[in-house]
Amino acid sequence: MVSPEALAEPQGRYLADLMGRGVRGTADAVVLPSSAEEVAAVMRWCYENGVPLTARGGGTGLAGGAIPVAGGVVLGFERLNRIRQFDPLLWRMHVEAGVTTGDVQRRARESGLRFPPDPGAAEISQIGGNIACNAGGPHAFKYGVTGHWVTGLEVVVPPGEIVQLGGPIRKDVASYDLKSLIVGSEGTLGLVTAAWLRLVPAPELELPVVGLYRDAEAGIGAIERVLACGAVPAAIEYLDAVTLSFSGDAYPFGIPDGGAFMVMTEADGAASEARRVATELQEALAEDAVAVHAPEDPADVAELWRWRGGAAFAILAQRGGAFSEDIAVPLDRLRDVARETLEIGARHGVPALSFGHAGDGNIHSTFLFSPDDPDEERRADAACHDLFELALRLGGTVTGEHGIGWLKRGQLERQLGAAGYDLHMRIKRAFDPKNLLNPGKKL
Amino acid sequence: MVSPEALAEPQGRYLADLMGRGVRGTADAVVLPSSAEEVAAVMRWCYENGVPLTARGGGTGLAGGAIPVAGGVVLGFERLNRIRQFDPLLWRMHVEAGVTTGDVQRRARESGLRFPPDPGAAEISQIGGNIACNAGGPHAFKYGVTGHWVTGLEVVVPPGEIVQLGGPIRKDVASYDLKSLIVGSEGTLGLVTAAWLRLVPAPELELPVVGLYRDAEAGIGAIERVLACGAVPAAIEYLDAVTLSFSGDAYPFGIPDGGAFMVMTEADGAASEARRVATELQEALAEDAVAVHAPEDPADVAELWRWRGGAAFAILAQRGGAFSEDIAVPLDRLRDVARETLEIGARHGVPALSFGHAGDGNIHSTFLFSPDDPDEERRADAACHDLFELALRLGGTVTGEHGIGWLKRGQLERQLGAAGYDLHMRIKRAFDPKNLLNPGKKL
Repeated sequence: MVSPEALAEPQGRYLADLMGRGVRGTADAVVLPSSAEEVAAVMRWCYENGVPLTARGGGTGLAGGAIPVAGGVVLGFERLNRIRQFDPLLWRMHVEAGVTTGDVQRRARESGLRFPPDPGAAEISQIGGNIACNAGGPHAFKYGVTGHWVTGLEVVVPPGEIVQLGGPIRKDVASYDLKSLIVGSEGTLGLVTAAWLRLVPAPELELPVVGLYRDAEAGIGAIERVLACGAVPAAIEYLDAVTLSFSGDAYPFGIPDGGAFMVMTEADGAASEARRVATELQEALAEDAVAVHAPEDPADVAELWRWRGGAAFAILAQRGGAFSEDIAVPLDRLRDVARETLEIGARHGVPALSFGHAGDGNIHSTFLFSPDDPDEERRADAACHDLFELALRLGGTVTGEHGIGWLKRGQLERQLGAAGYDLHMRIKRAFDPKNLLNPGKKL
Repeated sequence: MVSPEALAEPQGRYLADLMGRGVRGTADAVVLPSSAEEVAAVMRWCYENGVPLTARGGGTGLAGGAIPVAGGVVLGFERLNRIRQFDPLLWRMHVEAGVTTGDVQRRARESGLRFPPDPGAAEISQIGGNIACNAGGPHAFKYGVTGHWVTGLEVVVPPGEIVQLGGPIRKDVASYDLKSLIVGSEGTLGLVTAAWLRLVPAPELELPVVGLYRDAEAGIGAIERVLACGAVPAAIEYLDAVTLSFSGDAYPFGIPDGGAFMVMTEADGAASEARRVATELQEALAEDAVAVHAPEDPADVAELWRWRGGAAFAILAQRGGAFSEDIAVPLDRLRDVARETLEIGARHGVPALSFGHAGDGNIHSTFLFSPDDPDEERRADAACHDLFELALRLGGTVTGEHGIGWLKRGQLERQLGAAGYDLHMRIKRAFDPKNLLNPGKKL
């Protein structure tokens, strides 16, 4: 992870993303089409001439998925940024791939609706990129990831054909689920040019309930009580002791003495329902807690989420560099992730911490380094490889929401096994026989 | 559609499903394996000897998907019927493919949880078949279809390999979404032997609210008001005038004079939330209604859903034969489906009606015939083809929840277009190069 300012440089804007690791691609050309037909024309040219084609959304990816490691053409979507249709009374919106996630969320909210996926960089990331990575976020616990809200895609596939998969319909079992196959394919099967999104009435009230615990053991016990309480929270996050030591000073309600592990939940819905669920969450969190904070003032609630969203930057600021991964494990292995993340860091001599979407078992284990210390950076990178190993040993996945990208190349075959990986590669060849779409990725 | 009693005959049990149309397959052998390894051994033998292999769950499909039209081996899953693991506190269950949907629902409910998919024949259908068809049901409106609740699959793929796709994890973007590709593939890509299912805390209360209207125009206006009211119902169904004329006598609360179109919704959740939503639904439904019924007694609620579930059989009883399809259209085209279904029936001289999952735009347009009148049966079948045409003209799909099966062969290419159909077929060849898995289906 590098600072988002890096994306402002003309070069970084098209040749790098937020993965860091000094990886910068090369491009023979950057094209900025403004229609699906133009995207198809670019792909046809690339396919005829054997030139790699790498798609790029907002560039906020953390796995190098948008870095043009094989050169060729970079295709940016910023001009494909129209909302083609919005039918609030039918809970649906038709958007082009370059519309930012934040704009989709805002337009929905203005009409009393919600587009629930809430990845970290919503103001910069584009909906096409979110679809390509099947982005998640804290509220995926209750609402599911991006793909769950996509009912139709307009996609350009090799050698340059525009296909419509699904549409403004809520159920469809006619073909193989080509739509879900494109979702999360990281630009290696086809380029999404537009999507039909499903929306849902917005909750009237969102009430976070935060518990602070003396250690991870007590905090994860609280998460288990939340799951057992019968209510459905909108989000279940945790932040471990090291995370709190870096970001706790800015926590709006003050970290109490002895508070060394935070569990952050949220109740939402109509006002009465949100209050009912918040009460259940408070009860589940209170046992064993050093403190429970349940802000109700909308300004406090917004401030809390702003603080949570800023945790990644507080972490990054510590040493200037941070590799923040996104493994996901079965819920009964959360304790192992919290503990072994620290052990891996100690083994490699780098500061380590974990935080993230605990209710989905999707944890951002993070290793810090100074960009001026190449050896430390190398050790942080080695720690990530041990972390991927851990995810597989715990029966999990090396990536819950960032994607394989360039960073995790080589991990996929180990996770899927030979027969599963063979299926994966057969699909790649079926879509992209010349291996020109984002070559080197998702392998 | 034929009577489910047909499945009790030793022959019908493995050679037919509920599609009717006199289609019965042939089998050289029926095998009933009791482990994934045995399924793999059967597939290896079929692949080595070039013998077709057709998988069969409960046989309640309505599109002929389980009929062995090419002969060969029929593989039944009734002995693969163990619940391998159930972790109620972690909201998940690991089941073999032959467990009935009803058993999954019951086991979940006994622990305060819910497995939300509720296809029509839950007591007979098996979870593996539900996955193969991505089955829906009334509550898919709020909760989504079967695939949304599947986090992992154990699948046997050609030439006879067992692969694990996903597992007891709630997020995973490592590989292409192979799991979603298998879901809904109707036994043509691989055979599901077990699944990890996601569950959710069960609602405390379910409160249906039924509105009766003078005609389809008024009823569909009521559906639009429900969508606009800001609440999220668990289900939005409609039953048209002809449906009510056949099944209305058994309606537990009495069809009032002038009540010729029914909209059936449901509020669910904690008691307070279910009551709040039910009140909103009542308000939205009341305008223009001939009557609104909002049963609260659990016995009345159960009776109402039993009646709704029995509508298909009341319809079937009219003339002894019924072709009941499952097109899905954008929500703004519900009026067209209700009206044109009747026009199609009139054009072909067969009784016609429509009912179903209106909130998802997924309507069971139905054409009746007497099994003793081959010409009428032929005309009812021709009406179905006009209906599929209608679905495509309205921007919808020929199948929202039953699948393409054998019945809708030839429709897929028209729906997907040449480029999309080509992708579909490339996937088939990538998985099943010898075309031995359920040949003739999903084309």
